Amino acid sequence: MQKIKGTLIPIGGNEDKGIEEEEMYTLEFIEEGILYHVVKEAGGIEANIVVIPTASSIPIEVGENYLTAFATLGCKNIEILDIRSKEDSESERAIALIKNANCVMFSGGDQSKITDKIGGTTIHKLLVDRYKDEEGFVIAGTSAGAMAMANDMIAGGSATESFIKGAVNMYNGLGLIPELIIDTHFIRRGRFGRQSEAVAKHPELLGFGLAEDTGMIIKNGNECTVIGSGMVIVFDGSTLTHNNEKILKEGTPMTMANLTVHVLSNGDQYSIKNRTVTVLPIEADFI
Amino acid sequence: MQKIKGTLIPIGGNEDKGIEEEEMYTLEFIEEGILYHVVKEAGGIEANIVVIPTASSIPIEVGENYLTAFATLGCKNIEILDIRSKEDSESERAIALIKNANCVMFSGGDQSKITDKIGGTTIHKLLVDRYKDEEGFVIAGTSAGAMAMANDMIAGGSATESFIKGAVNMYNGLGLIPELIIDTHFIRRGRFGRQSEAVAKHPELLGFGLAEDTGMIIKNGNECTVIGSGMVIVFDGSTLTHNNEKILKEGTPMTMANLTVHVLSNGDQYSIKNRTVTVLPIEADFI
Repeated sequence: MQKIKGTLIPIGGNEDKGIEEEEMYTLEFIEEGILYHVVKEAGGIEANIVVIPTASSIPIEVGENYLTAFATLGCKNIEILDIRSKEDSESERAIALIKNANCVMFSGGDQSKITDKIGGTTIHKLLVDRYKDEEGFVIAGTSAGAMAMANDMIAGGSATESFIKGAVNMYNGLGLIPELIIDTHFIRRGRFGRQSEAVAKHPELLGFGLAEDTGMIIKNGNECTVIGSGMVIVFDGSTLTHNNEKILKEGTPMTMANLTVHVLSNGDQYSIKNRTVTVLPIEADFI
Repeated sequence: MQKIKGTLIPIGGNEDKGIEEEEMYTLEFIEEGILYHVVKEAGGIEANIVVIPTASSIPIEVGENYLTAFATLGCKNIEILDIRSKEDSESERAIALIKNANCVMFSGGDQSKITDKIGGTTIHKLLVDRYKDEEGFVIAGTSAGAMAMANDMIAGGSATESFIKGAVNMYNGLGLIPELIIDTHFIRRGRFGRQSEAVAKHPELLGFGLAEDTGMIIKNGNECTVIGSGMVIVFDGSTLTHNNEKILKEGTPMTMANLTVHVLSNGDQYSIKNRTVTVLPIEADFI
């Protein structure tokens, strides 16, 4: 496989105060430093940043909130690309913006909208190619925008019915990092069960559960570093000695033996290829 | 250590419809067969069953609901022991009932009340001694009544602040099975984080997270069999390669590497001593 040169930054979502506020980007987020890391990885405040609010049901408001947020950090070249259809993804402006961007930021909302309106289009192909080929090219995404980076994407699923086969719904994502299944808002919405079921379905993949206000800087499709104030829960199904997901009937409780789980926080590192954790010394500074 | 002869049956709580209904024992529970297992392990419908609703804020109603529930199963000798103080635990009636019981059932509510009103009293000592010495003697407990079986007991803790050091509160339990930390209502209330923190604090112990309408029959303080319609999540901290709980400041997110997690369902077995899972064949009957 070709060595990947770009950077992915999936983010677990903002502090969860309910649907409306969740989609509204607040400035708390910036103070915690996640967006600062996005800008830094993209080359600093001169970087061309393109915000895609496609997942959101209120794309105009979400776009404006990102404009404010990036401007507060001193960014000068921010564009909103409000894609609402596959046709929009084929427009000259869309293609030009993605070609010139140093950083593309996907908002939260419904991750299936990202697949439906961008998947398979010219800008999707451009994003994949530039991510593979260009050092310093950054694709970031919060909540739905993070989940859509996977190939096997969690599209929905009940937290309360978790560990029951069929509780999780999967869909195609953008396939930027096919080794991962990404879930977000992981702690406040109690999403352990649906991530476990997703990993039981795809035990060869790694499940990353991102807490609110927490992200991962993923370089070369391999080296991950936790940023933000919360934690990332990693589910590694490669150690499973028993997993009855394939043969269970829908609606039946699952059995899984010997799932390996890591709880990682700020500065901790994870290698996707080696499936190993490198922890930061306790006295290290918050990054 | 002396070989234990009695049986423990911790239960994860009834289906969670909110505080009031949770404490009210409904007949759904019986249909699912959990109470049937309790009665069977105690020797059948002739067994002397003593219900202790001490944890509940509505002990009279809870006691009456258990009377109805056990009577529906055909049980003939059911007594309510409504202990509300340490003095109540020293009463002649209490001591006589515990001496003659084949099965003692602790209700849900606040597990700290069990410790405060029964811990260290004559009936606590009687329960421990009879559980150690007498084959067929059953101590069952639902929700708070299950959590109180541990020595290091989860007394409370936020689900949304989980994986942050200090989110879980521990207290002394009845010490019937000091190898375990028991949590209940595990799925619907999203309690993975607080159980992980409890296991990080006590990595030599096993964390059992019991879902609603799910229990464990634990024989000889070792052999566990899952009963009921949900699942039991087992956290084994013995494989941890990194755990910074001891040195972290309160309020800081935790790091844990290589926690082993099992998801067990009806009929699956677990050995506390060997820390091994034995799964039921997929075609086996529901027990």
